[in-house]
This record gives sequence, C-alpha cells and structure tokens, in this order.
Amino acid sequence: MQRLHLLSTHPLRLTPLSAALPCRKTPSFLPQSGTRRSPPSFSIRNCSTNSSTFKVKTSSELRNTKPSSSTDSQLDPKLTALRRLFSNPGISIDAYIIPSHDAHQSEFIAECYMRRAYISGFTGSAGTAVVTKDKAALWTDGRYFLQAEKQLNSSWILMRAGNPGVPSTSEWLNDVLPPGGRVGIDPFLFTSDAAEELKQVISYNNHELVYLYNSNLVDEIWKDTRPPPPNKPVRIHDLKYAGLDVSSKLSNLRKELAGAGASAIVISMLDEIAWLLNLRGSDIPHSPVVYAYLIVEIDGAKLFIDDSKITEEVSDHLKKAGVELRPYSSIISEIESLAAQGAALWLDTSSVNAAIVNAYKASCDRYSQNHEKKHKTRTQGFDGSNEQLDGPTTLHRYSPVSLAKAIKNEQELEGMKSCHLRTLTEVEVSDKLLEFRSKQAGFLDTSFDTISGSGPNGAIIHYRPEPETCSIVDANKLFLLDSGAQYVDGTTDITRTVHFGEPKAREKECFTRVLQGHIALDQLVFPENTPGFVMDAFARSSLWKVGLDYRHGTGHGVGAALNVHEGPQSISYRYGNLNPLVNGMIVSNEPGYYEDHAFGIRIENLLYVRNAETPNRFGGIEYLGFEKLTYVPIQIKLLDLSLLSTAEIDWLNNYHSLVWEKVSPMLDGSAKQWLWDNTRPIMP
Amino acid sequence: MQRLHLLSTHPLRLTPLSAALPCRKTPSFLPQSGTRRSPPSFSIRNCSTNSSTFKVKTSSELRNTKPSSSTDSQLDPKLTALRRLFSNPGISIDAYIIPSHDAHQSEFIAECYMRRAYISGFTGSAGTAVVTKDKAALWTDGRYFLQAEKQLNSSWILMRAGNPGVPSTSEWLNDVLPPGGRVGIDPFLFTSDAAEELKQVISYNNHELVYLYNSNLVDEIWKDTRPPPPNKPVRIHDLKYAGLDVSSKLSNLRKELAGAGASAIVISMLDEIAWLLNLRGSDIPHSPVVYAYLIVEIDGAKLFIDDSKITEEVSDHLKKAGVELRPYSSIISEIESLAAQGAALWLDTSSVNAAIVNAYKASCDRYSQNHEKKHKTRTQGFDGSNEQLDGPTTLHRYSPVSLAKAIKNEQELEGMKSCHLRTLTEVEVSDKLLEFRSKQAGFLDTSFDTISGSGPNGAIIHYRPEPETCSIVDANKLFLLDSGAQYVDGTTDITRTVHFGEPKAREKECFTRVLQGHIALDQLVFPENTPGFVMDAFARSSLWKVGLDYRHGTGHGVGAALNVHEGPQSISYRYGNLNPLVNGMIVSNEPGYYEDHAFGIRIENLLYVRNAETPNRFGGIEYLGFEKLTYVPIQIKLLDLSLLSTAEIDWLNNYHSLVWEKVSPMLDGSAKQWLWDNTRPIMP
Repeated sequence: MQRLHLLSTHPLRLTPLSAALPCRKTPSFLPQSGTRRSPPSFSIRNCSTNSSTFKVKTSSELRNTKPSSSTDSQLDPKLTALRRLFSNPGISIDAYIIPSHDAHQSEFIAECYMRRAYISGFTGSAGTAVVTKDKAALWTDGRYFLQAEKQLNSSWILMRAGNPGVPSTSEWLNDVLPPGGRVGIDPFLFTSDAAEELKQVISYNNHELVYLYNSNLVDEIWKDTRPPPPNKPVRIHDLKYAGLDVSSKLSNLRKELAGAGASAIVISMLDEIAWLLNLRGSDIPHSPVVYAYLIVEIDGAKLFIDDSKITEEVSDHLKKAGVELRPYSSIISEIESLAAQGAALWLDTSSVNAAIVNAYKASCDRYSQNHEKKHKTRTQGFDGSNEQLDGPTTLHRYSPVSLAKAIKNEQELEGMKSCHLRTLTEVEVSDKLLEFRSKQAGFLDTSFDTISGSGPNGAIIHYRPEPETCSIVDANKLFLLDSGAQYVDGTTDITRTVHFGEPKAREKECFTRVLQGHIALDQLVFPENTPGFVMDAFARSSLWKVGLDYRHGTGHGVGAALNVHEGPQSISYRYGNLNPLVNGMIVSNEPGYYEDHAFGIRIENLLYVRNAETPNRFGGIEYLGFEKLTYVPIQIKLLDLSLLSTAEIDWLNNYHSLVWEKVSPMLDGSAKQWLWDNTRPIMP
Repeated sequence: MQRLHLLSTHPLRLTPLSAALPCRKTPSFLPQSGTRRSPPSFSIRNCSTNSSTFKVKTSSELRNTKPSSSTDSQLDPKLTALRRLFSNPGISIDAYIIPSHDAHQSEFIAECYMRRAYISGFTGSAGTAVVTKDKAALWTDGRYFLQAEKQLNSSWILMRAGNPGVPSTSEWLNDVLPPGGRVGIDPFLFTSDAAEELKQVISYNNHELVYLYNSNLVDEIWKDTRPPPPNKPVRIHDLKYAGLDVSSKLSNLRKELAGAGASAIVISMLDEIAWLLNLRGSDIPHSPVVYAYLIVEIDGAKLFIDDSKITEEVSDHLKKAGVELRPYSSIISEIESLAAQGAALWLDTSSVNAAIVNAYKASCDRYSQNHEKKHKTRTQGFDGSNEQLDGPTTLHRYSPVSLAKAIKNEQELEGMKSCHLRTLTEVEVSDKLLEFRSKQAGFLDTSFDTISGSGPNGAIIHYRPEPETCSIVDANKLFLLDSGAQYVDGTTDITRTVHFGEPKAREKECFTRVLQGHIALDQLVFPENTPGFVMDAFARSSLWKVGLDYRHGTGHGVGAALNVHEGPQSISYRYGNLNPLVNGMIVSNEPGYYEDHAFGIRIENLLYVRNAETPNRFGGIEYLGFEKLTYVPIQIKLLDLSLLSTAEIDWLNNYHSLVWEKVSPMLDGSAKQWLWDNTRPIMP
C-alpha cells in the first residue's frame, strides 16, 4: 500500500543544513503522520522558488462553478456553529485548527475522532482544516487533490500542499489574521513538537497559541450524531506469535530507562503499547490496537484504558507482568502526580501530545516554585548525565519501543511468512477479495481499505471505490488493486496491476519500467547502517530514463500483526530519515507510475531485511539484502519484453517458480489452474 | 582524482536531524577542506558506538619500536621551540592548533604556508596538529594512515580520525588539558564557522579560544628556512575561454547583493576571485590561482594582492572593470573601515576566515558603542529584510560565486572538451606522462600530483611516488594512474587502472564491478534538483553485491581552467550536501576498490551535466544526464566478461568507438596503433 507522501506538508525545521538549499520554505505546519520518528524532511524536488506569492483557487473556482466569496463560507451551518463557540467565555479565539489525528497520532482512527472529516466533508486520511471567523481552508497533499475537490463545498478553500505558491497553515494564519490573534487547538491532537513549532511560527505575527484543554469544539457541535467511542474487548496476542513475553519486553525497556537515567516513560503510540503488552484490540479499522496510554516506571507499569474493554483473561495477563489498570481519562492527573513524586520522565515529544507534555512541564514548574531555588527543574538533553537530584526532570528522546518493535524476532517473521502464503492468490475486485480472504484461517480484518481503481481512477494514488462514484471495472483499462489483511499471526499489504483485455504499448512500457524499479530494489545488497533513502532512486531509475517518476515514497515499515505502516525506517526520496534498515525489519517495495486521468500502476511486495551471505565483508561489517514475503503472480501480459534484461527475466521466472512452489499446495481446482497459467516462465 | 574523503574529520553540527541517528558523536573539529560549501556531513556507516573510550596508539607503537612516553615528545627540537613561545608575553597559551590550510581554505597551498607539514613532518594534504605543553598529536583520515605512520616521529601521537575510539581534536583537548586552559590559533587559518564551533566545544571544559592575530607561532620558529611567499605574475584568462567579461560577472554579483540588501561582500576563496576577475596565477601548485582577497561593493571593487604580481596589462584589465588594487595585508584595516562606513556586509562564514569575520564584528560593536542605542548593530539572518538603517550589518550567507562558477557557460565547456582530447592518450608512469603532456598545446601544469601506484601502493588511495620509497612498476600487478593537467582552456582529471601482465581472477572481478558502477552512474538520468548523494549508491551497487565497497566519495566538482576540486556539488555517500546537480556542472565519476596491501582499482572520467532529451517530462521539470569529457581506453584485459550485461558491453563498445573517433586524428605512428588495438569492440 502506498503512503508516506506528506513531503511538503511535513513541518520543516530550519537546520544549518537548510542554509545550503537552493531554495527554502518557511516552516509549514501539519501534525506529523505515522512515521513520526522520521525527522521532518524536505524534498528539494518539489521546492518552489516563489512560495511567497499566494495564488490559491477555491475548490468551487476549480470546479468552474460561480466564484466563491467570503459569504459562502458563512453559509455552512457547521462552520457557523463552530464560529459561534469562538467567543464563548474561557475560549475567545480568532481561529481554530482541526487536524486529522487522534490523541495518539494514529494513522487510522476511530470514527468518533474524525473531526476534520466531520467539519469539512473531506474524508481523505491526511489533511488539516483551519477555520477563522470568516474563512475556512483545508490543506491536503497530492494524493487527495482530486478527492478534496469533489468533497469540499464552496465554503472551503482547498490548499494544495506542496504546490507552488501554496502557504502552510501557519503562513496562512499569519497572512489572514490581524496581528495579535488567538489561535485555538485541542492540545491532545497535536504532538508537543508540532504545537511548539506552530506556536513559534505564528508568534512572528504576534499570534498566541491557545490550548483548549477542556473540550474539543468540533465535538461540541457534533453532539448526538457523533459516533460512540469504540468499546470492543481487548485480546491477548499469543506468545507463539509474539515471540517474547511481556515481562521480558518491559524488562528490556527498563534497562533502557535506567541507562538513560530515567525513572519513567509515557508511551502513547497505540501500536507500541499493543506490542509491549502483547495485546491486540479492535478500536480502529485495520489497525489491531486499542486506545490507551502506558506509563512504565522502574518498578511498575500503568495502563490507562477503558475498563469495559478488559476481560478477566487480559486482566490476569497484565497482572502477571505487573501492569496495573487506570481509567483512560486519568492520564493527565497521573502525569501531574509523577512530577510531584520527582520523576525523571522520558518523553518523546515527537509522538506524545502537547496536553501531556505541557501538563508535566506545568507540574514541574509548580514543583520548582514550591521548592524554590534548591530544587530547580532541569531538562536533560540527549547527552544528559545520570545525576540524581530531587526535583522532577524531563528527558526528551525518541521512544525506544519504535526500533525494538520494528526489528522482528523469529516468531514474528514466521507469522508474517505464513499469513502471506494464505493471502491473496488471485486478483479480484475488492468485494470478492474480502469474501475470499475471510475464508482463510486466522483472518481478522483488512489492514487498510482496499484500493482498487480501474483506468483513470487508478491514477488517484489513494482511490477507494465508493458506491456512488466508482466506475465499472473496464476490460480495456489497467486495473490497480492494493489490499491487505490483518491475520492473527501477521499483516499483509500487496498491490498488483492487471489488464483484463489488450494493454496499450504505453501501458506496457510504463508497467515494465515500474517492474524494473521493483526488481532493482528487491535485488539490492547494501552495507549495514544504510538508510532507506539511499535505495529509493534504484526503484525510480528506469522511469527516470524516459522522464517519468512517481510522487510517493517507495517503501514503508510494516508491523507484525500490527499497523500496516510503521516506522522508524522508510524507503523514500525524502532525505531526512536517517534510520538504517536493520536485519529483521519489514518494508514494502512499491514503485508506481500514475498518468493523470488515464491509468495507475503499482507493483508492491513486502520484503524483510536479512543478512546477505556475501563472499566478502569489506570494512568488517554485515551486508544486508531483502527476502520476499509476498508471493503473487505479476501479469506477464503487461510486459514489454524488449525492455527487460536477461537478469530481469531471470528474476521474474525465478519469482514465479517460487510462487507456484509455495502457493499451489494451498489451492485446487480453477484457482490452481489459474496459478499454473500465471507462473509459467517466459523466454528471453 | 579521488578526494572528498574527510567524513569523520569534518565538523559535525548537531542539528535536530542528528537526534534520529542510531549513534552520535560529539562535534569533532578540523577545518573544512575544498568542498566547504557542502554542509558538514556525517557518515553513519562509520559511526562507532563506543567513541567515548580512547584507545590510541602512538605511531612508534604502531611501528613496533620502543614504546613512546611523554618525554619523547619533549625531545623534538621544533616542538621544544614552539612550546617555548607558549609562555611569551601577550601569548600565554596551553595548546596551539596547526591546521593544514592557508588563509583561504585552499586545497593545495603554497609551500610557505605548509606549517602543519613543517612542524610534524607529515606531508599529506589533510591533517591537523595539536601541540600542548607535553603532548603532540596529529589527526588525519583513512587516506593517510599509512603515510602518517611512516612520517611522524615518536614525539607524535597519530590520531586515526574516523576509527572507533579516536577522539576529535576538541574532545582530546578537553581530555588532556586541565580545565580553564587557553587554546591558541592563528585566526587567519580557520573559517569563522570552524573557529566558533571549536570555541563552543572546548568551552565545555572551560577552555578559552585565543586568537593570535599578530603572528603565526610556527612561522616564528621556521624563520630563515621558511620558503618565500610566491611572487609570479598574474595573467589574464582570455575571454574566449572565460566566456563572460569581468564587468558582466561583477554586475551579476551586484544584483545578488542588492537583492539581499547587502552593500558589499568579501570573497576569500582564491578560485572564486580568479573566476570573477578572469585572472589566473601560479602561486599554488596545480591550482592556477593567486593569493588575494576581493571586496565587491555596489559601486566599486578592491583586490587585495601583492603589487609585484600585477603587470601593466593586468592592471589595465582590472581598471576597465572598475577594480582597484590594495596591498594583500591591508584586508583587515579595509574591513574595519567598511564597518565604520556602515556597510551591510555579506559574509560567508563557512569560507571567510575568523580573523576577518571577527574584525568586522569587533568594528560593528565599536560603532554601536559609539552611536549608542540609536544605531544598534543588527545581524540579518537568511530571511533578513532589506530595511536600511545607519549602522553596519552582517548578512551570513553562502557566497553566490560558488554556484555561478560551478555552472559552466558554453565557452568554458568548449575548453574543457577540447583540452580533454589533448590529454593523456596512453597510460604511462608519471614521469613519462608529464613529458608527453608538456608537448601538448596549452599545457600549463599538472592539476594535482600524479598518483601512480603499483600493486600494494595502489591500495593507498592518495599514494604519490617519492624517489626513496616508490616501487618499480611490476608487470604482474595492477597499476593505478590518477593524473590531471591544467591547460589554458581547461582542467583534466583522469584515472585508469591497467595490468601489464596476466591479471588474477580476483583482480578481474573487482575491476569489472568497479566498471559496472562507473557505467551505472554514467548512464543515470535523474530529475532536476536531485543532489549528488542520491546517485552515489549506483556506483557501489555492483561491489555491494559481493560485500565490497570503497571508502571515498564517487565524484567531485571540477573547475574550468581552475581548481581540480570545487563545490558546491559532489557525489558522495555523505548525505549532508543537498546541492543539486545542475545543467552545466562538471563532476568526476570515479568509483574504486582497494584491497589493503594488495592492489587498488579506480576508473575515473569527467562528466558534465546536461538536459536529457527524455520522451516525457513528468512533473513539468527537466530530466538531466551526463556527457563524457574523458576519452581514454579502458583495459579490456581486466574484464570478467561473464559478469557484464549486454547493455554494459554495449556501453563499453560505444565508448571505445568514440575514443577512436575523437582521439585518433590527433595521433600517428605507434600511438595511433596502440589506440586502435585498445578500442576494438568486444563481443557479448
């Protein structure tokens, strides 16, 4: 599945490096998405030289309807209701920002948290809405421009993030608000880093960032129609799939805490909590996680979760590992009491929300005032020493759970291999697919909404068919199918592009070049400590030769029976993510090509990283390569064989022979015949 | 020619990015070398996890002679004399740092400025000596470990920069000096950025950085044996080679100044001055430049240079462009008077030395004290506005001349093409080569000391044969020859590796993989705005497949009848240099492989970047590719044909056919026969 595409919507931190950039952009603001551990990145490829002039059309202008005016914006009843709250006592704001996220920076979120979709009507996964007293604007990225044009009404201005001349949210606020404005946010929905950056940028025009702790303004107007919060029970992720018990995982984490001089850590990423505690949930579509916070101390641990989701079995499982239960809503008061106890708290400000970080900071300040100069609050940096003082302290570091989770152990890899052989053995449209999958042992959920697009819809990178708009699968057009599933032992994610009729030469050339990129990446061997972005260009090189490219990254991390997108690694042209690919990590390999209003192509396998048995080991280090998890035929009909080298044909024949060998024992009848037909070797 | 190899000896700036690194190093200090515009970079591949423990052996220990002691260090007469100066009145220091550089951050320098070589005996191009009252240590990088072991006497500790456990110069000073020490430097020999960083790091142990403006301590002990400063006349670089006259170049520069709100700029890089003024000199071996500073103001320009080097013709040439002459040594007083006049001075603190930057700052402070609060000194950042106030100001920006110079115009490219066809058409040992080259029209100098190494010496990346140590060319070993020349119209740089007997299978495999990397880079097509580091892995991929690699970058910029190494672009695995490759830039393509104590392989062509005529232009941007400048046969005998693809064999045959076509008309007799024999196509 394609993602990791927020290049220009990521906040850009101006580091000394940026001084050497040929052109720079003022930091733009949007909360970071799933790969939050990637440092903010910047694609100089999309860098515009005249970003200071705004030439933004409203969505209505773009649809060639009557031109918009600011009064349009005042006719939207939700916007009117929201603006009415602006002047309430204790609120008093001039603008309100509604991001896509929940309080945990989840990529997929429960329906009750889809505030940005509710207020704007735009349902894409990435976007930020900003509402002032007389304007409303929505930012999204290239994947969603077409969808947003369709879904936004004329009260909204569509901001095509990354396009030349399009301001960031904070630039826009600085532009449209008179100086000295008050900009409100729900501090639970912003990481501490994102809130701090926003605060700084809007301060250029003397605006103040106002944390509205007590209520989310969208929830207030949503009222009765708001879906209830999820409440399905949590289940235990069996040790035979997890590979390591909870006590051992907590013990490893505590060693990291002790080594850093921390006495406690707050974990807020839901997949990290699920992984650490060997728990799985059903709170969120596609992601088998549960809404919770976790505090791990040297001598205990507390899980903040709605009691109703905890069965007796889960309760025992947690008790055995020394994990106590607390109400989900009591996280802030627990944070305050940690400060009062003088904790040295490890906080990952790139993932933990501003509400928590700010509450701890405020409590530290109170503590320090109470104890005067003798017990000053200190903030330890990355090179902080381990000295023990009495007052509470903060360590700002990335969560150590992210990397531990990304490096799969043997049992996790076994599960991933096994579920991949049970997945998709025939390419069909979404509904059929789900039906077919559900028959497989261990099937739980899709790992994301299946993306299937015929012809022009395939060119919409994240197109999801909806009954009222989807086109009929056309035998004369390319058909792109990106789908995945959650099994009890693993998570799958695969894309194939097929043609049910006679593909055109242009389609064959593009498909072949995408496949060449896929093969080049698949075959790569690289020294340990190589970050994924070094590999990204190998997947594009064949397209580049004829002046083609695709506007998304090439690979993302994948969780083991967890989130289909996880960090810290990625394979992307955005150069900021220096996390190396490590033995045991899983990544997708999914180059593509999309021709606007015509067709879309993507070929995606999941791979895992493993030591390559090279005859030499220059530098005394390991060399790494990839092993495939996905075994599904690639359609030969779509190849322009004249472009392929002997080595590439060998790769394809070898792959198809493995597909037959591994998958055929699980099939019979026409499915087996189909597999046989589609795995025959081709001749050079 | 290979270079750009200072990875771990480059100062590392801790940016937010570094937070995500799997391990970090405290900033290490060494003045930056030639590609100074590349932001400081960091190879996580060489990142050590235990750099806090120092396990450093002295050079004598490594040579297995008697173990060193601190008294050894006190027997060296030069060190003794230097230390005696430490306690002189007005000096009073505990340590002195002697870098490799001159006052202009030149890569090659005049002999009279080779203070580090004089004091330490180590003659390699990169290194820093640090002398305390009882210790002396020399830092150099992997290219020079073997050479430094041979050249340093037992008074010196060799610091193998980049090796695990080796501290940076500032870490070492913090370790060996008691807190509160005074560390002296010659402020002309450090860029302002480097001095500032050094100052900050040693302040962790309360050391003070002391700028010794009045004299260089090494010069004081060098005395009569110090070579005189260069004094050869400057010549005009003909307009037919330069392509643009001085007035036009200055006018373009002034537009940049005006646009940034600057009233003046100091240029201190010698190649930038030579390029701007269409002058060439002979002050420095290999680099056709002259020692000078240049100040360009909106309404004038001043060249600071020794009068004796200026002929009447050059004087007229400069007068015509409105450039006045000033003594080289008067730069500081002119800087002070600029401040007094309230200039808005553009300073590239990554290239301009600390003496100049500090003098301007001090003058600004004096101005501001004199004019009290009404006329405060301001420092404009990158987003500084153009407001005009009375007091002097500073703009800290990279010099705009670097990029202008790197993008060659038509005449410059013509000269580069033309001189490349006159260069090296037969691979011989250094002496023969120079003799042969000197017969060519327009030959002026080699562009660097020819690097030729037979067998094991080829494994020393920068080996330069010296009469007393060089080995005889052995017909049974690989022979590596890296050489270049300065012509009146251009600069060449080429490496070939040949075998005069029967190469071993291992040598053939390695050579073939290096060639595959060379071809992969040569053939690459890429979108505009792609930085060179994206391409670097293509040159390594074939080596990586079998666990091999090389410890240097793949390409550097090359000047047109100027420095053989220039920025801002590079092709390197160090990810910090975000400067894209631009149409008209020249880069080397020089992958290699070096087997310690056995052999070295490198294949280097120069390429220029030009728009690729792709059938598509996705994203509405240009796609770029490379054209070759170098036409010299690649030895077929060294190939393992079984490893090459049809496309690679086609590349080689096509290249050799071009070599014959372009070079044969300039040869006759046995040379022409040799070329014929060595450009015949091979069959797949």
